[in-house]
Amino acid sequence: MRLHPVILAGGRGERFWPLSRRARPKQLLPLLSDRPMLADTLARLQGAASPRDTFVITARDLAGAVRDAVPEIPHHHIVGEPVGKNTAPAVALAAWWLRDAGGDAVVAVLPSDHRVEPPERFRDELIRAGETALERGAIVTFGIPPTRPETGYGYIEVGAPTAPGSPFSTVAAFREKPDLATASRYASDGRHLWNAGMFLFPPRVMLEEIGAHAPEIAALLPALPARLAEDEAALARYYQSAPSVSIDVAVMERSARALVARAGFAWDDLGSWVALDGAEATGRANVTRGRTILLDSEGVVAFADGGLVAAVGARDLVIVHTPDATLVCAKDRVQEVRALVARLKAEPGGDAFL
Amino acid sequence: MRLHPVILAGGRGERFWPLSRRARPKQLLPLLSDRPMLADTLARLQGAASPRDTFVITARDLAGAVRDAVPEIPHHHIVGEPVGKNTAPAVALAAWWLRDAGGDAVVAVLPSDHRVEPPERFRDELIRAGETALERGAIVTFGIPPTRPETGYGYIEVGAPTAPGSPFSTVAAFREKPDLATASRYASDGRHLWNAGMFLFPPRVMLEEIGAHAPEIAALLPALPARLAEDEAALARYYQSAPSVSIDVAVMERSARALVARAGFAWDDLGSWVALDGAEATGRANVTRGRTILLDSEGVVAFADGGLVAAVGARDLVIVHTPDATLVCAKDRVQEVRALVARLKAEPGGDAFL
Repeated sequence: MRLHPVILAGGRGERFWPLSRRARPKQLLPLLSDRPMLADTLARLQGAASPRDTFVITARDLAGAVRDAVPEIPHHHIVGEPVGKNTAPAVALAAWWLRDAGGDAVVAVLPSDHRVEPPERFRDELIRAGETALERGAIVTFGIPPTRPETGYGYIEVGAPTAPGSPFSTVAAFREKPDLATASRYASDGRHLWNAGMFLFPPRVMLEEIGAHAPEIAALLPALPARLAEDEAALARYYQSAPSVSIDVAVMERSARALVARAGFAWDDLGSWVALDGAEATGRANVTRGRTILLDSEGVVAFADGGLVAAVGARDLVIVHTPDATLVCAKDRVQEVRALVARLKAEPGGDAFL
Repeated sequence: MRLHPVILAGGRGERFWPLSRRARPKQLLPLLSDRPMLADTLARLQGAASPRDTFVITARDLAGAVRDAVPEIPHHHIVGEPVGKNTAPAVALAAWWLRDAGGDAVVAVLPSDHRVEPPERFRDELIRAGETALERGAIVTFGIPPTRPETGYGYIEVGAPTAPGSPFSTVAAFREKPDLATASRYASDGRHLWNAGMFLFPPRVMLEEIGAHAPEIAALLPALPARLAEDEAALARYYQSAPSVSIDVAVMERSARALVARAGFAWDDLGSWVALDGAEATGRANVTRGRTILLDSEGVVAFADGGLVAAVGARDLVIVHTPDATLVCAKDRVQEVRALVARLKAEPGGDAFL
């Protein structure tokens, strides 16, 4: 089995403003280490897949920054989408290009900006999932045992195990983001897992399923160039014509070949500044990145991008310094960072900070 | 009567860090308007004195920045002290240089970084104080009726009025910064006023008092160059030899020629970030300078130096953004900004932020 990771890095998150900007979205930020999350994602694969077998699908205007963040990946493996069309067109394109990669080829579609720990465990499970996908001609997705009634994630309802005691099961259903009551039930009934947005499949299995469930995408694939960078115009036409739809909706919810692997690694999508402290702090501890001085401060997430954050008597705050903007946000209000960004978009001159 | 303002601008305050830096202390900051406080101070004199009659005494390494801040003042009127020796040597030097300025000359020694409002009232009272100093051969200082039991100010105990109903009185005593119990008594007994650090006098009156009460300074004056910039080495020798002492201690506390004018203008020394909200806000209002977006925030003092401060759900905080450093400080802890600065001085590389 030979893994071909396809890392999806086209996101435009606003939840990490002011560190995240249009030209430097979350996957390019050093949120969990001193390097961009995308580089963490690649490093996590070391030993399971080669950078030379790895693709990154990102937005066209981010391609240069992506190349800088992961120089180990061949430049012609970095796909700059001229327009974002959710995940299905990107996954289909990857499967199409890798359709002749060999009988042992397995594509691993992976997000670029999530937290996954520990890396060793993730690698072992990734390899096992790839082998299972190959053996069974399946599309394997990872399901994370919920640790809280999270309403921001999709869920996977688990069906029958492929064998007694196996971590692999059929999929009973994919569930969209639930309301809180439903999420509470999902989190406790033992039959629902978080959908981590990872998919492993032999290319031809995915192409068959796309042909069966998303024929409007399948019809566009033959016009793609044989390799990236050979025909930018053809790539542009593909993205212009493709529907904007997730691979979950286009294929996974309808496919009979889906399997779910119960993950033994920890995962979250790092959805806000507050999620950073889940990584490191317990209780009233402060979480810092960059240069900080926190005097008599508790429960603070402080992030200094190249400069210094100094605080006295701060309580339960997110404090982010960048050269041109500072954010101070009550920790229970981090969802409103998006409202700030919306306000900036609407204000004269606010664009300069986005 | 012709006023010769001598503005003292040698301060090195740390209380407005991170906006204030070694090379840009409080008097050079735009704390109360869009221009440096020193420029506000000069503007406040317009109509009472000419910039061409005005001197600024500052630190040698700040002289260039001072020239930029108040270009109306002749360059040879900007004195760069090679070493700070408190106020007495500076006042003595000004009196010495202006000793032949004419029989109608009155020196007005003024701080450069205090809040004084409204300017019209200040000008009227300044002129009246200057006339009184000239008529009576006195050193007139301003006393501010206390509005709170401030322990950070010196006080002046008022003696007998020079005439019934006159705002001018003799001085019973100068009082150093009191403890809280004493300050409470001073603030309510009607006999004590805040010492605003302003002094008006005919040059020869001050020189006589210096001769009488600070002979070690008087002895150094004849060796001064006749004008500034004629002999930098002689100026340096003066400052090297002069004792470091305030004019209050060296002269005012001992002089029988001191008068105090009860001020009708509002004054404070703007001692911390929190003082800024005294200027503008009442209750829970926010005070902002520069570009800010404050969502559901109350009692915030936000200062953006060229960039942006954005806050969500902030309460009773001072938030200051500069390109390389951000301060977040509980409003009741602003006195500890100095502790932060001390910490930075002690840390490797911390100097870069001072």
